[in-house]
Amino acid sequence: MTERLVVIGGDAAGLSAASQARKRRGREDLEIVVFERGRHASYSACGIPYLVSGEVSDPEDLVARRPEVFRDEMDIDLRLRSEVVEIDLERRAVAVRAQDGGLRREPFDQLVVATGAVPSRPDLPGATAEGVHGVQTLDDGIALLRALESRRPRRAVVIGGGYIGLEMAEAMLKRGLEVTLIEAGPQPMGTLDPDMGAMVADALRGLGAEIHLGEPVEELHHEDGRVTAVRTADRTVPADLVVLGLGTRPNSALAREAGIEVGPTGGIRTDRRMRTSAEGVWAAGDCVETFHLVSRRPVAIALGTHANKQGRAVGINIGGGYASFPGVIGTAVCKVCEYEVARTGLTTAEAARAGFETVEESVESTTRAGYYPGAMRMTTKVIADRATGRLLGAQIVGREGAAKRIDALAVAIWHEMTVADMTGLDLSYAPPFAPVWDPVLIAARKAAERLEPARTRP
Amino acid sequence: MTERLVVIGGDAAGLSAASQARKRRGREDLEIVVFERGRHASYSACGIPYLVSGEVSDPEDLVARRPEVFRDEMDIDLRLRSEVVEIDLERRAVAVRAQDGGLRREPFDQLVVATGAVPSRPDLPGATAEGVHGVQTLDDGIALLRALESRRPRRAVVIGGGYIGLEMAEAMLKRGLEVTLIEAGPQPMGTLDPDMGAMVADALRGLGAEIHLGEPVEELHHEDGRVTAVRTADRTVPADLVVLGLGTRPNSALAREAGIEVGPTGGIRTDRRMRTSAEGVWAAGDCVETFHLVSRRPVAIALGTHANKQGRAVGINIGGGYASFPGVIGTAVCKVCEYEVARTGLTTAEAARAGFETVEESVESTTRAGYYPGAMRMTTKVIADRATGRLLGAQIVGREGAAKRIDALAVAIWHEMTVADMTGLDLSYAPPFAPVWDPVLIAARKAAERLEPARTRP
Repeated sequence: MTERLVVIGGDAAGLSAASQARKRRGREDLEIVVFERGRHASYSACGIPYLVSGEVSDPEDLVARRPEVFRDEMDIDLRLRSEVVEIDLERRAVAVRAQDGGLRREPFDQLVVATGAVPSRPDLPGATAEGVHGVQTLDDGIALLRALESRRPRRAVVIGGGYIGLEMAEAMLKRGLEVTLIEAGPQPMGTLDPDMGAMVADALRGLGAEIHLGEPVEELHHEDGRVTAVRTADRTVPADLVVLGLGTRPNSALAREAGIEVGPTGGIRTDRRMRTSAEGVWAAGDCVETFHLVSRRPVAIALGTHANKQGRAVGINIGGGYASFPGVIGTAVCKVCEYEVARTGLTTAEAARAGFETVEESVESTTRAGYYPGAMRMTTKVIADRATGRLLGAQIVGREGAAKRIDALAVAIWHEMTVADMTGLDLSYAPPFAPVWDPVLIAARKAAERLEPARTRP
Repeated sequence: MTERLVVIGGDAAGLSAASQARKRRGREDLEIVVFERGRHASYSACGIPYLVSGEVSDPEDLVARRPEVFRDEMDIDLRLRSEVVEIDLERRAVAVRAQDGGLRREPFDQLVVATGAVPSRPDLPGATAEGVHGVQTLDDGIALLRALESRRPRRAVVIGGGYIGLEMAEAMLKRGLEVTLIEAGPQPMGTLDPDMGAMVADALRGLGAEIHLGEPVEELHHEDGRVTAVRTADRTVPADLVVLGLGTRPNSALAREAGIEVGPTGGIRTDRRMRTSAEGVWAAGDCVETFHLVSRRPVAIALGTHANKQGRAVGINIGGGYASFPGVIGTAVCKVCEYEVARTGLTTAEAARAGFETVEESVESTTRAGYYPGAMRMTTKVIADRATGRLLGAQIVGREGAAKRIDALAVAIWHEMTVADMTGLDLSYAPPFAPVWDPVLIAARKAAERLEPARTRP
């Protein structure tokens, strides 16, 4: 008998799951229906800032596979503008509100919840005024693009200094707008150590952006329904356009209401295979919580690369194979104009919260041999466990060619490598690519040198 | 009583050893004398191609520390143009031919042999003609530079298609010369698999170089003592200038003659601490052989990054500390104009020689998200053990931003990671830095998919 797989969400996680399941099971064996509430599916949400900046010229460029490809070539019944509003575990069905507004019950044998994330919206007066833009969906991006092109705003305020906030600040700078970034916390990039975050702040100022840190937004002024300014306790910043980059939280409400277990992070809890607490129900992507391999605690990290891997694992498992998602170590990278920022593992504060006592070391170096043209300054910071010397975290701020080095550090953290052992690593060297001691090795070496006395203490 | 440390060779390995020893032991405790036969010390030999190309404008830019810094600030007695011609282990002394031609006996308590490598010179008629240039030392580089500037040659022939040959081909192309590369083997970059080597050959041709493969050079024609052409079995190529890039072998003659053990690679044999077979004699750099962690065989690899690490270990050990060099996995990277080439671990052929049966997978991908401006094509090849899935080697050929990814692969090889486990790695992702599946992950994933059936066989 044909089984029926229902997938809620037509983006990275959901469609990876659907594609992998289809690869392993034919249409007679498995019917696959995907419900996507938006007008677009299978697009790169991470590409939206570059659509807004103009570096990507067509929204279609962000679409990995067009809807008809799923229908025609993969026998995946992808239905756009179809919002699942209820999961009924007892009856093994979901309730779907279709384009025409009608509510329909759709049965499933297996269910994949890939409902993504909910962007944080400030609960503030004026937050829904015209000219206030979120940038979570492709529709959001297109709307912002239209506002930029039709209304020709001059002053943009970006609220929130995380990855999205920084990428949107870059986009607005590239568009030639006056940009002010307002961040409630003491630094942009709260996922970096304060000293590294300060470098990002300096870099942003150097690019011509105004930054106000430690200033929660209290109100958005508006006139005739259009935003005119952003007010904090300290100032009022005029704005023709406001972009919200306040981060996201897992969109797990639907699952929770159905009685599916949700973890302390607000993300749906799964096992290694991405099975939820409910029989035959899987979850993947921004709506789940995963395991941090260094802190050993649950975390919810919205990132396309995790969503793809998790969705793929779900699809393989539904397809009769065996695949698992091992967890994360918090690797991330971000570009703001010519600056590159990357991190992996734990920050100093995160390490402390996880019970580690740490030694940190920052080194100034260059991306290439100092004498080679185009050698760029970069700062590499490593955080090591004081007792064992184990690398716990690393951060990089620099210019072109700096950030991707975080991957070598990520693999070292993955293997619980000590900074002392790292100094022997056979990393690539030639003058156009690195100094003879790669910044990664220098940072590890300096940390190892600092640890040596501590390690020989009784 | 003051001990006397003699170091033979004033480059990366020798001066790293001297500096580290000094850091840990003062002048009353340790006298340090370094004999360097050339006119320059402490320079980046790897930078010579970029001096020749004109990208580095001043030979002094390649000098890390000027000789007087060693003498004045570090109490290291660095003597240039002083060639050690004999090591006398019994009398604990070396014989040094000084600038004035006189031979002097210099006693030592501890000795560091850091004699570097000998460039391969073809034993051919005409090989010593004017216009034939090696590029091993800074003096070689300066001589070539002068020849380029004073004689304005039009046609350059580069003999040898390894790293140095490729870098010199780039330098000659940048100088606007007609460049022909002649390689005796079937491909340039013999340290790559043939399919990857072929990509390098195509790239070189695309850059305007002529390439002749599988053609050993038989003779260098000359007129009035100056080179005029290079002859192979198949052709005669006119040349105003010939650059030899034929690789090197360990310069271990001095050590061998003294009775110090030399391994099967021709390099001086050492233990993990870089001790030779002779009491109180250490060795480091291009003159030693080291251990390949994947093939588990001795190898001699001339590379500045190993020389620095080994020299540092020697200096720490002489200084009373404990440091070891763990061995290598053959990581290397090279740039030829806009192309980047990298490798780590074993090639398919090297793996076969070491007794592995392998599965290989090559993937075409891009350095950034496909829609992001400046996304460059790159090919990533991985080689895995058929029995265990362990990653044995990896190679990358691509354009800007491709090659440094080899480091993440190198750390994975270092930890004997399987390609299946690699697919879960938390590598950095954002559209300006990688597709949502980094090429490293795609390659590992494809190899894991191919291995799966094999792994479940009885």
